[in-house]
Amino acid sequence: MRKKIKKINAAILIIGNEILSGRTQDKNIAFISNWLNTTCGITVNEVRIIPDIKKTIVSNVLILSKTFDYVFTTGGIGPTHDDITAESISKAFKLKYEYHKEAYSILQKYYGKNKFNDGRRKMAMMPRGARLIYNPSSAAPGFITKNVLSLPGVPSILNSMIENCKRYLIKGAKVHSKTLNLYTVESKISKKLGHIQKKHKKFVDIGSYPFFRLGKIGVAIVIRSTSLSKIKSVNSELIKLAKSKKIEILNL
Amino acid sequence: MRKKIKKINAAILIIGNEILSGRTQDKNIAFISNWLNTTCGITVNEVRIIPDIKKTIVSNVLILSKTFDYVFTTGGIGPTHDDITAESISKAFKLKYEYHKEAYSILQKYYGKNKFNDGRRKMAMMPRGARLIYNPSSAAPGFITKNVLSLPGVPSILNSMIENCKRYLIKGAKVHSKTLNLYTVESKISKKLGHIQKKHKKFVDIGSYPFFRLGKIGVAIVIRSTSLSKIKSVNSELIKLAKSKKIEILNL
Repeated sequence: MRKKIKKINAAILIIGNEILSGRTQDKNIAFISNWLNTTCGITVNEVRIIPDIKKTIVSNVLILSKTFDYVFTTGGIGPTHDDITAESISKAFKLKYEYHKEAYSILQKYYGKNKFNDGRRKMAMMPRGARLIYNPSSAAPGFITKNVLSLPGVPSILNSMIENCKRYLIKGAKVHSKTLNLYTVESKISKKLGHIQKKHKKFVDIGSYPFFRLGKIGVAIVIRSTSLSKIKSVNSELIKLAKSKKIEILNL
Repeated sequence: MRKKIKKINAAILIIGNEILSGRTQDKNIAFISNWLNTTCGITVNEVRIIPDIKKTIVSNVLILSKTFDYVFTTGGIGPTHDDITAESISKAFKLKYEYHKEAYSILQKYYGKNKFNDGRRKMAMMPRGARLIYNPSSAAPGFITKNVLSLPGVPSILNSMIENCKRYLIKGAKVHSKTLNLYTVESKISKKLGHIQKKHKKFVDIGSYPFFRLGKIGVAIVIRSTSLSKIKSVNSELIKLAKSKKIEILNL
């Protein structure tokens, strides 16, 4: 008998005025979400992007950490005045905001005693009891407080640290997906597609996304499920539907 | 005397499993945020990305429309079963979900009576009293319900419609910004930068963002304010700071 694996979910909290203002295009959401699903079987169910305002960070951390199994924050753990993630998480959980001994010694070693100035020391300030997420690319560690994992905002540094989150995460059931690309318009198949989704709604999610390729209009049908056999059977139904409507399939 | 212009804010609610799963990289946040600020003087203060689940859309629409002056939703207004934005907004505001006469006739004219099938007709279903946001590229209109503006998820279509949102928006004070690129590391300037931010915190936001360019490490200092003269004065202080620390400035 196949062991039933629990569904585990997460939220991502992007902290940063630069993303909100449109100055910077976020790259972390897709990366974290893909990694969580493929590596840990964890599904991201909500993302929020908020400004560098302590009160706002506190309230969002509290609500998301209550609602989801894990919360990933990105941004605001550097040395400057607008880096207030660690302080805000301390406040949210009523924990002392203090030097983390190991983080302090990692940073002191990395910069050398003479160059370990105020800004750099600030990166060792964390909520009491935080455990470290090691940073192989630029030393300054992230940290986990309760179920909240805090990572930096710079994508290349975040990417280098993500594997070090794994030890803190309980694995869930991986969501598999299969995409069927049809040269058609959504409204030509929407009714039948709705029926197929309804029939399988307990185990399968079917998404429909228009695309444009080489001057032709198409629809990408994405089938998502923790069960590969359910995906296969829905896929067959969809192929049958496409054939009955004489719709060209791009990736049979 | 200069007339004081009110600050107007907005939230963006991205509705779509494909963004949450990491399958699709969002492009609408930066576009809407930039457009709102430069064209209407409206600042985006929060973004949420949520799945295609009616209950979740309803609760997020309600809380965001209460908290912010405007809410922009993207996605979920097409013809397929996973397009449930209009239905969910109707539910949130306890409005009847029904055919919008003008939208119906626009779509019927666009597709022709014979090809105006169920899926296409669904795109004319809206909350009672909704006003239309015209769509010059593919006919199916967006709509505004109370302070919630609903746009499609496909970026090229959304982009073509954004100017048609303007008539529904009250203009606010535009936030200007200036970026100063310094060849330094954040921790070298973080203390002084914090002092400058503190001194000007009432009118100016200073952000600090590391970058890598041609093998050199730098920090982009972004000064944001509704007052151009305040930006200019903070900029001068920052240039003085850089010179005193012998830091190379990239864009003097």
